[in-house]
Amino acid sequence: MEFISSEKTRDKYDIGNIIEDFQNGVLKDGDEVDIKGAIHNIRDMSDFAFIILRGGRLELQCVYAPEDNPSFTLADIEEEDCVIAHGRIVKEERSRRGFDVRLLGMTVLSRPAEKLPFAINKKKLDCNIDVLLDNRVITMRHPKEKAIFRIADGVLAAFRNFLREEGFTEFVAPKIVSAGAEGGADMFELDYFGRKALLAQSPQMYKQMMVGVFGKVFTTSPVFRAEKHSTSRHINEFQGLDLEMGFIDSYEDLMALECRMMRYLFRYLNENYQPELEMFKKYPLPEIKEIPKIRFIDAKNLIAETYKRPYRDPNDLEPDEEKLIGKYFLEKFGSPFVFVTHYPTVKRPFYAMDDAENPGETLSFDLIFNGTEITTGGQRIHDYHEQVAKMEARGMDIADFGDYLAMHKYGMPPHGGMGLGMERVVMRILELDNIKQATAFPRDIQRLNP
Amino acid sequence: MEFISSEKTRDKYDIGNIIEDFQNGVLKDGDEVDIKGAIHNIRDMSDFAFIILRGGRLELQCVYAPEDNPSFTLADIEEEDCVIAHGRIVKEERSRRGFDVRLLGMTVLSRPAEKLPFAINKKKLDCNIDVLLDNRVITMRHPKEKAIFRIADGVLAAFRNFLREEGFTEFVAPKIVSAGAEGGADMFELDYFGRKALLAQSPQMYKQMMVGVFGKVFTTSPVFRAEKHSTSRHINEFQGLDLEMGFIDSYEDLMALECRMMRYLFRYLNENYQPELEMFKKYPLPEIKEIPKIRFIDAKNLIAETYKRPYRDPNDLEPDEEKLIGKYFLEKFGSPFVFVTHYPTVKRPFYAMDDAENPGETLSFDLIFNGTEITTGGQRIHDYHEQVAKMEARGMDIADFGDYLAMHKYGMPPHGGMGLGMERVVMRILELDNIKQATAFPRDIQRLNP
Repeated sequence: MEFISSEKTRDKYDIGNIIEDFQNGVLKDGDEVDIKGAIHNIRDMSDFAFIILRGGRLELQCVYAPEDNPSFTLADIEEEDCVIAHGRIVKEERSRRGFDVRLLGMTVLSRPAEKLPFAINKKKLDCNIDVLLDNRVITMRHPKEKAIFRIADGVLAAFRNFLREEGFTEFVAPKIVSAGAEGGADMFELDYFGRKALLAQSPQMYKQMMVGVFGKVFTTSPVFRAEKHSTSRHINEFQGLDLEMGFIDSYEDLMALECRMMRYLFRYLNENYQPELEMFKKYPLPEIKEIPKIRFIDAKNLIAETYKRPYRDPNDLEPDEEKLIGKYFLEKFGSPFVFVTHYPTVKRPFYAMDDAENPGETLSFDLIFNGTEITTGGQRIHDYHEQVAKMEARGMDIADFGDYLAMHKYGMPPHGGMGLGMERVVMRILELDNIKQATAFPRDIQRLNP
Repeated sequence: MEFISSEKTRDKYDIGNIIEDFQNGVLKDGDEVDIKGAIHNIRDMSDFAFIILRGGRLELQCVYAPEDNPSFTLADIEEEDCVIAHGRIVKEERSRRGFDVRLLGMTVLSRPAEKLPFAINKKKLDCNIDVLLDNRVITMRHPKEKAIFRIADGVLAAFRNFLREEGFTEFVAPKIVSAGAEGGADMFELDYFGRKALLAQSPQMYKQMMVGVFGKVFTTSPVFRAEKHSTSRHINEFQGLDLEMGFIDSYEDLMALECRMMRYLFRYLNENYQPELEMFKKYPLPEIKEIPKIRFIDAKNLIAETYKRPYRDPNDLEPDEEKLIGKYFLEKFGSPFVFVTHYPTVKRPFYAMDDAENPGETLSFDLIFNGTEITTGGQRIHDYHEQVAKMEARGMDIADFGDYLAMHKYGMPPHGGMGLGMERVVMRILELDNIKQATAFPRDIQRLNP
């Protein structure tokens, strides 16, 4: 009988590992290496050539000289070939990594059937957003595009690691839900074995159910919104980072949690994603010690007065107001973040807890980051009778909400939670113009491919 | 201006932390504590009472004596109340945690509106699977049910942590896909702003696209299958653990990766989920040093001969055959796992790479764990012309696969990958009878709630 071993191995062909080994002194000047990667760029300098190999994360400069390579010429290789390059490490202070690899041989593993329709090996990827998104399979290979999605990888990891350290349990919420549970406005409809079903627009009901079980819970999952607006801040399917926390003393516990989370996130990215942040001139991200907070109505008035901008809608923040709030707190307090609290009851969902001291306001908050809302959160109603009363006052038929209300009926701790959009967080960290730049395969009212 | 601090705090009210603090000597006999939890059980012993508090993860026994508690009586509290209990640590060798908490006071934070329709504080939750699933909000509170979903939490964490350590990048695949991309058999149909769309039955296309970018990628996300069969091993929405790995030498690299992953997973669960595993008498999970492998056709013949069970279908394994393969390798080699390799081409998808040495067979594998398939994987075709030829031979219209084939056209490394079902992994670890027991909110042909 043959067996597969669980013995741990290190990927010695990986460009990132080779760079690390050189920096740690494991690989030295004169050592020979084999490198797996794609040929990102060939720059023929007539008596020699620079060949940039592109690895999963980083690139590495190799030097080709005909006299070292009797076995192949530049005519044998093409950009976007996947190869194993054999070469010798040559210490080189002027080189970005501190060394070059002098090539001694090249094995071509695969070759594209066609040349790329446009270049991805220039410093800037010069195309409009539709070309960018239509050709993701190619455009994503550009180092700066890759960096965006490496940061997304870091945001997902940091969110989960932080919450596990804080004692949270991860759970899985279903995405196919029955028509009754969440209303149906702005939801996608589905044929479920002949019945009508909907795609969940939030894991709200499930995270509340789970907070009654595990006390502190989170889930990361796609969230679907059938909203018809087309803006630079909205997509119809996004990655929701959702958490719910039980036994809170007040909604301020949630803001304190998020403040710790942002500190953790920025530290985590600084430690693990320095090259990617540097590509966007964002390294290092600041140390988050505290985040200012302001009441919704005070924020409205502050912006109106400071920027001579009378507001029209007393119940919601317009995108421009969010931008100005961000600007004000950055300039005045040096904070890229600001909590806006006490949103009006009319603008918050039926499960939001009202502020007993300020009727018409909820114990809720948004987090604004670089001028864009990235989080909505707040305390929820936990008492059955209070929840039923609020639903009835809104004209909702509680018979449609049996599953939802069961948890209140059988006992819930005081609790609250929040939801973040992963793509928004990435977009604001890197200060991208459009959320679709931070979405690998965005869905909007027109776009369903790739 | 007011600020929210990012200062780290420890949840001193948490039962798990209190138990840990006692074990580490931070809390000692005689110390007073405040504990947040739900009242799981009240056992009145006439001159005193045991009150079990249920925390997010663990339970803790408290002792109520009237003489210590002038401020409340047993009539003031009910099971499923959420409370803050105040009490004194009393060392007690006979107690499960090594101590009891002698109650000195009780604050009731919330009270259920109705008594539970059935008991969740007995050792066994005595109900059939429909009652279990219809009443998840209640049944999930049972400690043994909670343990199942804590293990799910651990499987998700271990999968991602392991892959990050191996240099993988996480990405997000869209779930709403266009009708052309994946065919449409066994897929749910969706109305997407008046167009027909489908719910992705796998992130296959996207993980292949991403492996051409990042070299090693993974994603954890819901997977939708509109299959009408109703078995103890199938659900219509499950949590897919998907990975894809570039620059492989052979499909055996993938099996080696999965072997390391299973070792990592079992170690991770042993280290972090001992109480949960113990509830199912599974602690400790075995150390996975190696996993045997056998070719598909050899496995068929071995089972047919060993168990006198002639097979009917030469191209697939029946559930009973999987069970017997599991049994054979467990008894003969002490291995709960076995790789079955070289599945017939006719049973594998169009992107599977055929074995040049054995026409009609693919460079693929399944992993069988305790008699059930938990993984399907294999090497994929990376060459454009080879992929087009295989699709045409199957009568597929390549015009429908423009986005898919673009990656092959513009160059791909040799690569392969695998997909696991999270719920199947949990089900086999704990040896549950039905996958729905390992699914918090299962979806099947009848079930769309809660």
